[in-house]
Amino acid sequence: MLEELKQKVFEANEMLPRYGLVTFTWGNVSEIDRKAGLIVIKPSGVKYENMKAEDMVVVDMEGNVVEGEYKPSSDMPTHLELYKAYPKIGGIVHTHSDYATSWAQAGRSIPCYGTTQADYVYGEVPCTRCLRAEEIANEYEKNTGLVIIETFNKHNIDPQAVPTVLCKNHGAFVWGKNADEAVHNAVVLEKISKMAYQSEVLNAHIVPAPQELQNKHYYRKHGENAYYGQG
Amino acid sequence: MLEELKQKVFEANEMLPRYGLVTFTWGNVSEIDRKAGLIVIKPSGVKYENMKAEDMVVVDMEGNVVEGEYKPSSDMPTHLELYKAYPKIGGIVHTHSDYATSWAQAGRSIPCYGTTQADYVYGEVPCTRCLRAEEIANEYEKNTGLVIIETFNKHNIDPQAVPTVLCKNHGAFVWGKNADEAVHNAVVLEKISKMAYQSEVLNAHIVPAPQELQNKHYYRKHGENAYYGQG
Amino acid sequence: MLEELKQKVFEANEMLPRYGLVTFTWGNVSEIDRKAGLIVIKPSGVKYENMKAEDMVVVDMEGNVVEGEYKPSSDMPTHLELYKAYPKIGGIVHTHSDYATSWAQAGRSIPCYGTTQADYVYGEVPCTRCLRAEEIANEYEKNTGLVIIETFNKHNIDPQAVPTVLCKNHGAFVWGKNADEAVHNAVVLEKISKMAYQSEVLNAHIVPAPQELQNKHYYRKHGENAYYGQG
Amino acid sequence: MLEELKQKVFEANEMLPRYGLVTFTWGNVSEIDRKAGLIVIKPSGVKYENMKAEDMVVVDMEGNVVEGEYKPSSDMPTHLELYKAYPKIGGIVHTHSDYATSWAQAGRSIPCYGTTQADYVYGEVPCTRCLRAEEIANEYEKNTGLVIIETFNKHNIDPQAVPTVLCKNHGAFVWGKNADEAVHNAVVLEKISKMAYQSEVLNAHIVPAPQELQNKHYYRKHGENAYYGQG
Repeated sequence: MLEELKQKVFEANEMLPRYGLVTFTWGNVSEIDRKAGLIVIKPSGVKYENMKAEDMVVVDMEGNVVEGEYKPSSDMPTHLELYKAYPKIGGIVHTHSDYATSWAQAGRSIPCYGTTQADYVYGEVPCTRCLRAEEIANEYEKNTGLVIIETFNKHNIDPQAVPTVLCKNHGAFVWGKNADEAVHNAVVLEKISKMAYQSEVLNAHIVPAPQELQNKHYYRKHGENAYYGQG
Repeated sequence: MLEELKQKVFEANEMLPRYGLVTFTWGNVSEIDRKAGLIVIKPSGVKYENMKAEDMVVVDMEGNVVEGEYKPSSDMPTHLELYKAYPKIGGIVHTHSDYATSWAQAGRSIPCYGTTQADYVYGEVPCTRCLRAEEIANEYEKNTGLVIIETFNKHNIDPQAVPTVLCKNHGAFVWGKNADEAVHNAVVLEKISKMAYQSEVLNAHIVPAPQELQNKHYYRKHGENAYYGQG
Repeated sequence: MLEELKQKVFEANEMLPRYGLVTFTWGNVSEIDRKAGLIVIKPSGVKYENMKAEDMVVVDMEGNVVEGEYKPSSDMPTHLELYKAYPKIGGIVHTHSDYATSWAQAGRSIPCYGTTQADYVYGEVPCTRCLRAEEIANEYEKNTGLVIIETFNKHNIDPQAVPTVLCKNHGAFVWGKNADEAVHNAVVLEKISKMAYQSEVLNAHIVPAPQELQNKHYYRKHGENAYYGQG
Repeated sequence: MLEELKQKVFEANEMLPRYGLVTFTWGNVSEIDRKAGLIVIKPSGVKYENMKAEDMVVVDMEGNVVEGEYKPSSDMPTHLELYKAYPKIGGIVHTHSDYATSWAQAGRSIPCYGTTQADYVYGEVPCTRCLRAEEIANEYEKNTGLVIIETFNKHNIDPQAVPTVLCKNHGAFVWGKNADEAVHNAVVLEKISKMAYQSEVLNAHIVPAPQELQNKHYYRKHGENAYYGQG
């Protein structure tokens, strides 16, 4: 079942090591078929170099394995919560990419210092609070999803305008309209994480880019007045 | 028309990802045919891996598309202003390369700390002021060009001796006598941006290289008394 | 003798330059055959590009060469002490990889700032004290092993839960159940060394990840309740 | 003439871009034939990708071109002074490699923070003073050599125990018993430059490695009691 989607999700997963975003098995990609109510996701702990499209796992919206030889990624319950809360997203990536993870470990949101970030993210990349002991003890991966949603709700952030989040002391989740766009955004996140890091080292008194410049770049590429690209 | 120039501009564009200067479509190269009064430039938002020489777009000095299936790069009006203001430059590159963009985001000009920079740039690499709200709202890309020119005029900088500029909170523009030299200078800019960053980390009290050393290296390679290379 | 093990150790050694962990001959891998009481190790100062499986050296538990044309790695006595003290480890790697060595040169243990480290190391990566003059003068390489063991004893660290150590002003030793796992852990060490470095630059007041989060990730992958991977 | 030496010097030059030590034409290698009193060196400003062994230039000990179609590297007079002052060195490399140049731009000698440096360099990597205006105005490249020699004399440094130097606000010179060893040492210099940089970021109160540890590692590889490698 869903052979075409498995192929897409497989190829998206394979892009992670190619873009230098994952070491060993530290990352995963999924995509949802909204009509079927099914998610295709990487199997847990399987090496990228040996993986095949048919190894992808199909789960339903309760996280039950519907098809697949392997157990799904241990981060699957996080993906699930995001798909349930955000009906317009179609693909999700989880990585421990170097610079994004460094911001997550530092427990800091990434301020928007320039147009590279503004082209993709409206405002800063938020960092969640750390999970509480009881949230870690029970249903940790599900609670990871819930704390992401809490963060977006609390600060009134639109998950379509901000397609990525840092989980404190952990790593990043990134999404998009499908698995491909989610991987694209994961590459962007690592790039802007690196440039923001370097910008702070160069200027201890740095402030975010003017809001009107952020708006200009964001809306040059998104929404009904976008004019970047071939339209 | 201009098939040879399209091929040159296409090849120059392809050099950007090869040198690690662009991610996805975040950069563009143009070259001008001064006699014809026409500019050949990368199409907007087209992926480097799929692009062909014939996809290059030809525009006139008012920015009208003269030939080409695609819309030109959204940064075209910036290129245009630079070509109009600086009659001796023949090729322009725009990138968001990592270290150069970090200086731009930090809002800082790059001091000349050594001979690597002095070999190519006479003095520091200037950083523009940020555009004002009204400059962003209307004709943003054209105003990006105008603020570059304003910066050079204000500080009395010769655009041939300083073939590059940082646009605050944005990225870099780099130029040369043709597209190839502009790409060459873009590689240089990224390298000197990295080394200046590292030099500041190593020495909080760093000062620029002595002016006579800067002069020596600059004039060893430029002007009538140059003796570097095969002459 | 031990031709199969020589092949394994040879291949594990060859992985070091492929993962960017060693320059020239600055690293070595060994594996022990516990039943035979013999260790197979890289020859000293032999270039990776010319090395063959049959060049591996076999030594006994007193460090005597039992078979091999070459002298064993000069770090062999360090490997020997670790194998003797820790009966459950089967493979050892020594590297001067960039970030791990920077922490060792800074004389600092690596705090556990996130789940990437917690997935592999229970707590911080310890850094030894520097050897005393007399420990350097006589049996330096053996004493390097002894000071590692002293460090683990003093802080009551379990060498299976913390499969790596930094030797002050020197480099890293990393181990695992065999040579392959030791190389895997050496890749992990370099990655977490880089991310901890960057995290500290981003947050001068950073603190380690909450203990319950560290526990969760460590025990998600290790011990009888592990549920990461295919089990 | 000297066809074999030209081939060696050509191959050594080609190793510079392969090891990531030079961008474009920013580096050069030479080797001396002491008996013949002739030096073979890279031509000035010729691209590595087009260069052939026969393009190497032969100069005598006064810097006169004895054979070769091209002008020699503009840094040739620096090489010449080093060969004249230090009769035991046989090959010289000049680079603007990233981290080494950053230390040179910061105007700082590289302290010996660990055994990686001690394995190759006895003590710190010295940084010269900047040249005075009159030294820059006349015979700049020759004076670059003289100020290196002045630095070594002033601090009583043995050029065989310290085979490299940083030229303030410029870049590095590195040497060895022949061109190959000089390139090897240039790779080492860049590596230790990077690790010393990172070590300082990690520890603001860092001090050099204990002298007895430096001695141990240096003499483990050099001199009559060396025991590293196959002897």
